Amino acid sequence: MSQALKSKNKTTEHMGQKNAPSKGILISFLVFAVAVAILFAPSLNSNVAQGMEGFNANAASSSDTVSQYGTILDTLQYGRSIHILAMLLVGFGFLMAFIRKHGYSSITATFLVVSVAIPMYMLIKSFGGEHFAMSTIDIKTFLFAEFAAASLLISIGAPLGRLRMDQYILMALLFIPAYIFNEWLILESGYFHGFIDTGGSVVIHAFGAYFGLGVVANTFSSFKNDPACENDSTSNQFCLLGSMILWLFWPSFTSAIVSPDRVVLTAINTIFALCGSTLATYIFSTLLRGKVEIEDIANAALAGGVAIGSLCDITSPGYAMLIGIGAGALSTIGYSIIAPKLESLIKGTDTCGINNLHGMPGILGGLTAIFVSGNTTVQLGGIVVTLIVAFVCGRASGFIISMFGKKAVPYSDQDEFMLDH
Amino acid sequence: MSQALKSKNKTTEHMGQKNAPSKGILISFLVFAVAVAILFAPSLNSNVAQGMEGFNANAASSSDTVSQYGTILDTLQYGRSIHILAMLLVGFGFLMAFIRKHGYSSITATFLVVSVAIPMYMLIKSFGGEHFAMSTIDIKTFLFAEFAAASLLISIGAPLGRLRMDQYILMALLFIPAYIFNEWLILESGYFHGFIDTGGSVVIHAFGAYFGLGVVANTFSSFKNDPACENDSTSNQFCLLGSMILWLFWPSFTSAIVSPDRVVLTAINTIFALCGSTLATYIFSTLLRGKVEIEDIANAALAGGVAIGSLCDITSPGYAMLIGIGAGALSTIGYSIIAPKLESLIKGTDTCGINNLHGMPGILGGLTAIFVSGNTTVQLGGIVVTLIVAFVCGRASGFIISMFGKKAVPYSDQDEFMLDH
Amino acid sequence: MSQALKSKNKTTEHMGQKNAPSKGILISFLVFAVAVAILFAPSLNSNVAQGMEGFNANAASSSDTVSQYGTILDTLQYGRSIHILAMLLVGFGFLMAFIRKHGYSSITATFLVVSVAIPMYMLIKSFGGEHFAMSTIDIKTFLFAEFAAASLLISIGAPLGRLRMDQYILMALLFIPAYIFNEWLILESGYFHGFIDTGGSVVIHAFGAYFGLGVVANTFSSFKNDPACENDSTSNQFCLLGSMILWLFWPSFTSAIVSPDRVVLTAINTIFALCGSTLATYIFSTLLRGKVEIEDIANAALAGGVAIGSLCDITSPGYAMLIGIGAGALSTIGYSIIAPKLESLIKGTDTCGINNLHGMPGILGGLTAIFVSGNTTVQLGGIVVTLIVAFVCGRASGFIISMFGKKAVPYSDQDEFMLDH
Repeated sequence: MSQALKSKNKTTEHMGQKNAPSKGILISFLVFAVAVAILFAPSLNSNVAQGMEGFNANAASSSDTVSQYGTILDTLQYGRSIHILAMLLVGFGFLMAFIRKHGYSSITATFLVVSVAIPMYMLIKSFGGEHFAMSTIDIKTFLFAEFAAASLLISIGAPLGRLRMDQYILMALLFIPAYIFNEWLILESGYFHGFIDTGGSVVIHAFGAYFGLGVVANTFSSFKNDPACENDSTSNQFCLLGSMILWLFWPSFTSAIVSPDRVVLTAINTIFALCGSTLATYIFSTLLRGKVEIEDIANAALAGGVAIGSLCDITSPGYAMLIGIGAGALSTIGYSIIAPKLESLIKGTDTCGINNLHGMPGILGGLTAIFVSGNTTVQLGGIVVTLIVAFVCGRASGFIISMFGKKAVPYSDQDEFMLDH
Repeated sequence: MSQALKSKNKTTEHMGQKNAPSKGILISFLVFAVAVAILFAPSLNSNVAQGMEGFNANAASSSDTVSQYGTILDTLQYGRSIHILAMLLVGFGFLMAFIRKHGYSSITATFLVVSVAIPMYMLIKSFGGEHFAMSTIDIKTFLFAEFAAASLLISIGAPLGRLRMDQYILMALLFIPAYIFNEWLILESGYFHGFIDTGGSVVIHAFGAYFGLGVVANTFSSFKNDPACENDSTSNQFCLLGSMILWLFWPSFTSAIVSPDRVVLTAINTIFALCGSTLATYIFSTLLRGKVEIEDIANAALAGGVAIGSLCDITSPGYAMLIGIGAGALSTIGYSIIAPKLESLIKGTDTCGINNLHGMPGILGGLTAIFVSGNTTVQLGGIVVTLIVAFVCGRASGFIISMFGKKAVPYSDQDEFMLDH
Repeated sequence: MSQALKSKNKTTEHMGQKNAPSKGILISFLVFAVAVAILFAPSLNSNVAQGMEGFNANAASSSDTVSQYGTILDTLQYGRSIHILAMLLVGFGFLMAFIRKHGYSSITATFLVVSVAIPMYMLIKSFGGEHFAMSTIDIKTFLFAEFAAASLLISIGAPLGRLRMDQYILMALLFIPAYIFNEWLILESGYFHGFIDTGGSVVIHAFGAYFGLGVVANTFSSFKNDPACENDSTSNQFCLLGSMILWLFWPSFTSAIVSPDRVVLTAINTIFALCGSTLATYIFSTLLRGKVEIEDIANAALAGGVAIGSLCDITSPGYAMLIGIGAGALSTIGYSIIAPKLESLIKGTDTCGINNLHGMPGILGGLTAIFVSGNTTVQLGGIVVTLIVAFVCGRASGFIISMFGKKAVPYSDQDEFMLDH
């Protein structure tokens, strides 16, 4: 064997090691999953123990009206939590399936990061003091865990198509603590008292977007000159299915944790915002590009949902529609004009254009709250701090993830999935 | 340049103007959307102002039982409104995506007309006297707006594939006032007191169908001799997905506004009607054609849901199943036998066969109510008036829409969407 | 005409008769459907008559708090019943659409068997004594009918691709009485008092799986050496869509009939089990096969939902996740290692691998309940009896179904659907 061939083999082996998850990593994940499960055992976790005891106590008192009312409200929130689960799986999963030949990867990554994010969020929040810990067996905690998963799914949109499955899991493990830290800092610590963000324009959407941009900044720049990922009619229709699922269940996202008598107001506001962004997207896509870009419809049509997050339970439908029109226009301008400039600025590729859908419209949403609260310092402060925490943590996570190699063939299922059927 | 060429160029330019929306039209839509939004501002709209004030008043009294019960019922209705939104977007959107190479257009048109219909319906109904106006921030008003959007989506099924995006928006702008007029005439004016149509067999389904047939009568007959629109295995499976979404959420459509204790009865009746039409569709499709036509399964299987609309909260499951069997048979006969005859009668193409799915089964549903109410005059009168209002308004709308030119390449995304990825 | 040709023609005719449903069979189905509907008529069915009378009585008392609470709980259960309907239609329908060129058949078969199962289950349960009959117009009865339909959809996964549409209907007619018998024996007769299976690991999942394996044992062995059914990227993405719909609505399946205050606990346990099985499936699929098999992701990821069925409302989230991890691992081992051995043992092909997803994880779920109840005899007895009843009834049904011939071209839509568009 020639020296050159030997060297090439070595490189291939070396790449082989870096391009596929080792058995060690897979077994580590298994151990980690088992460990997470065990740490919920009532004998180890007093939060869970108290929750389970509650059911026996409840059994006695469940006939009184107050307890009945609580049970009903919880079950109504449960309904909304399932709607959000539809957004997380079918919504984000199929929205990200627009890359032809990368459908299995997008959908499997969605399954995996949701399955890491929810238990991990709930495990961390089962410990800590009264300004931090949340009751594990409680629908509200589950809803907050879903919010964290949504933010994570947003962030993986940036490096999408260039990470291996095990790297998405790793990204989830790094993301959740950062998300919880920012959530605590902005909403629970008291430092930003009066910060308005009921539906998560800032702490969910903008956080996820700038974490994701942090991950791709430089780290994955080697893919910058790859041919753009391909899509076709079928993959784009799967994407539009995901988009529609996100659109229609969005009112349950924004109204998930509002007070019971504001669910309807929040839902109507959210729908008006989405109607506004959908119309604006069609209009601006045609004006700016001459023809409609289906990527705009699938994505920017949702920008109203992102931007209405901060004011969803306070404002009225007309203003919501105006916010939606603005967000749809901004997002479409983002996809058509701003995105190429941003990518050259951060020297990284944002596959799904999360800055256009979740980043800028999220900030816009956060800013609208200033007109209501008049509390410019707190609101601006919360936004800026969120962006910094997100980008810095994302950048650090990107560095760690990049140490585990990279996907062998970007934007393709072939290196990780069996395709020979 | 020869005279002939010049002339041809001029024609092309002229066609170019008529085949694509001008910037003026797009900006008009934007101005219209902003105007709609502004007209909801509490300072301009006392209905919205009162609704918003209600929340502050409520805050004080929200702990009493009556208010709690109202909040719960509203939230339960909210759940059904989201189910209906799934029908509007994924249901109708993908049902209409059966045309190969026209998937982006079908789905985008769905997004757009929903986004026009809901705010526009709610805006018009926010004004007017006590027999007309509805509270804007109220889940019931939103449900009625969704019904209007459903009826509109039915009607665009007739010209589907032959209108440009801006023409669908125009059709929505013309449809909603006509729909509201008929709804008022039949259900609110008192002229048809005792008319039974809880789930909208007549005022939603038949109205949408005959409005759509009015639009295509003559107006678009130039496409009559086009090759039939193509479909393939993938586009038909997207269509079946839409069909299943419509089927499974249909009980929430019919039970949306029934009294709380009749939700379960209405839901079971609806499901029995759908089971009946599904079985009848398979049987009649095979009997009439030798093999199953997948278009029948995707459409006629739903006819039970259309026909049970009138009696959904009054009848019992067995009768509901009989109505469903009849509707499924009628609809399948419609698709296989009646449709070609009707198209030559009205000199227009009914792309989705809305007469077979929503027209005839809707009338059948309206007629079944005579057996319960015995009120033949009112019931027949309501049906006939609805058909006349729908067809005449549809015909006039078709005339107006046709003045804005026509889609360059029928049944294709290529003239309006960027396809070169 | 030569003797040979005549003989061949005769064979073809003969095959023709056996390969397509005769008009007689189709008309029999129609008569059957009408008969089922008529047997629900209040004049013939005292159960329905009483149910309808209840509404008039209710009207008087519907303002009191107890009745209001009942109405609310029913409507909350209604919401979960629609979630389950989404699982039955879109979930199972598209999960089974993974066979390329057999999508119309999988989806139509799903429509048909659901449309037979629900009315038939409710008809049989509308008669009988107090330990058997259930109120027809009651959301709980509808939920139990949906469970029966789910179990039936599981069982058709075994012969999938090798039965004609009329044979799926026949299988449904044979399945439902067997299912009702086993359900009565295990849960209502009192013989297995203390048997724990709230979410149906045993009576729904394992029953369906072993009935289906009974159907294919020997009967369809002539297809054993067929080339394996084909799938492609699009068909597998439809399958993943079905899988995600099953995953996300699963909490409503397991919590459908639990006591109101345990809905949230049951939902959280179910989600933790699904997270566990999803992670385990990725890990074991990669470890066992080198690359991820998308069939594993689409199926084994759901095994946690199957296995948590027995303990879903009793255990706590950590244990649920452990059960899910175990079920995901077991199911992935099933798909990759056990399935070929089982198929040669029973001399039949299990198209969807229902033993791997519903059979073994269902038994695992049933066994986990021993650790909680300590009631080994009852729990083991219930499992064993269910397996025997299921397999014997399935075997007998397979024999009857096989008398009606077989599908002309396995794993293909072409013999039953019009494809020339």
